[in-house]
Amino acid sequence: MKLLDGKKISNQIKEEIAAAVADMKNRGEKVPHLAAVLVGNDGASLTYVGSKVRSCEKIGFRSTLVHLPEETTEEQLLQEVYKLNGNKDIDGYIVQLPLPKHIDEEKILLAVHPDKDVDGFHPTNFGKMALDMPSFVPATPYGIMELLKRYKVETQGKHCVVIGRSHIVGRPISILMSQKGEAADATVTLTHSRTKDLKSLTLQADIIVSALGVPGFLKADMVKDGVVVIDVGITRVADPSRERGYYLSGDVDFEAVSRKASYITPVPGGVGPMTIAMLLKNTLLARERHKEMA
Amino acid sequence: MKLLDGKKISNQIKEEIAAAVADMKNRGEKVPHLAAVLVGNDGASLTYVGSKVRSCEKIGFRSTLVHLPEETTEEQLLQEVYKLNGNKDIDGYIVQLPLPKHIDEEKILLAVHPDKDVDGFHPTNFGKMALDMPSFVPATPYGIMELLKRYKVETQGKHCVVIGRSHIVGRPISILMSQKGEAADATVTLTHSRTKDLKSLTLQADIIVSALGVPGFLKADMVKDGVVVIDVGITRVADPSRERGYYLSGDVDFEAVSRKASYITPVPGGVGPMTIAMLLKNTLLARERHKEMA
Repeated sequence: MKLLDGKKISNQIKEEIAAAVADMKNRGEKVPHLAAVLVGNDGASLTYVGSKVRSCEKIGFRSTLVHLPEETTEEQLLQEVYKLNGNKDIDGYIVQLPLPKHIDEEKILLAVHPDKDVDGFHPTNFGKMALDMPSFVPATPYGIMELLKRYKVETQGKHCVVIGRSHIVGRPISILMSQKGEAADATVTLTHSRTKDLKSLTLQADIIVSALGVPGFLKADMVKDGVVVIDVGITRVADPSRERGYYLSGDVDFEAVSRKASYITPVPGGVGPMTIAMLLKNTLLARERHKEMA
Repeated sequence: MKLLDGKKISNQIKEEIAAAVADMKNRGEKVPHLAAVLVGNDGASLTYVGSKVRSCEKIGFRSTLVHLPEETTEEQLLQEVYKLNGNKDIDGYIVQLPLPKHIDEEKILLAVHPDKDVDGFHPTNFGKMALDMPSFVPATPYGIMELLKRYKVETQGKHCVVIGRSHIVGRPISILMSQKGEAADATVTLTHSRTKDLKSLTLQADIIVSALGVPGFLKADMVKDGVVVIDVGITRVADPSRERGYYLSGDVDFEAVSRKASYITPVPGGVGPMTIAMLLKNTLLARERHKEMA
């Protein structure tokens, strides 16, 4: 069994990006500038956005946090989005989800200019991805593809079973892995809440991507020997014995499944750290594309 | 075995559209107006476009054919596209493919305004479709969904194996059938040229959508009893004994497979006629949306 070490690979990627940024600086060029829009004071969102901003600083990006009060109206948020679209200094930005309930998330995401949509959530980017055109790929599936590539995991002609059809993980990874190319060309089965006899499918799988959010869901008796397991689930499980009161669990019964797997991602330290690295990668790409267009 | 009669259903749909158009006329409203752009004199393309124009006339749409010479430059074609985008009288239009080799198809398709893209080939529409938002769904997969709906074929939780990952059939139908909703909620496996042991997958399938273009590819020993078979293939096979010199063959060995199938589409008369009906349906939708926006 080999660990797909997302922490290590994400650090490599960040170092590569930092080196590219240093080169930009040395050439006297503008460095990538990422903005994050946060509405309200949700604890988890504050943590995520804070971590993104700190990552930017570490690798030499500029970053801007647009922190708006909980009572911001949809119209006011739209105006902020238009301002960011028009601000030539900003290469890419994200709108941290979830938004307060009185704001229509879809309306906001549609207003983000596709050329600055480093989250890859705009339909234009999603469609380009699905049609094999250059785009911003959503960070989590992009991170999975990068992990598979860097560990040279064989995917061509392999049967990959994806668990979960969310727009940010299951759907895009099912598309990416079934396309032509590196870390792809797999035969992909997309499963979800309506799937019957999931176990008969996971038992056939050479590769399993689980993005379900149910701790310990994938058991050893559901996988075959030599399987590659990508665990996207990351759920807080209450645990009063720990100081912070919880631990993080993936979808996979790691201890038992890892004994049968050829490759497996740990949780934490697997897909999670890759996600932020790929957001930074998308921001670097955005800078490079804007430079070409200028 | 029950035939999924695309000819019959497409005629029903056309009648429904014609009735809607008659209502529009009676209310003194503008009727839908479809334009088709054809570059050059490819025989098959002339036939397709001619058939689309005639279908428009039959159901009361207005239609415009923009027929440009083979030597039209990319820039000239782009100008025509921009004109159609700006022409408020045109509700939707298609650019007939293939284009002459000196023109970049992708560049042209990206220039079509998504609100007039009744072929559903623009990434913005493709992305909206994949993200479950209102869009123009490409006519062939749209037609398959409509056939399944009108025959009330059970799809929820069924295992659907799609053969072929093209952007106009395999990819979109694999997305649509795995989404939530009617004629959907299936567990979908997308197979392609790199798939190993396809037969072991098709033998598990409750539903098979074949979009490969290889005459008679799917044999009876590759399917299980009660399977639902959607045959998207339509290939000309040379046959000197026939007056026109060929016959049309689907991907499916119809005679043998139909004996095991619960539902099956014939070729011709299955998916083919549905495609043009759904193009007309998209044009009607375009008119209705433009009216709402006006």
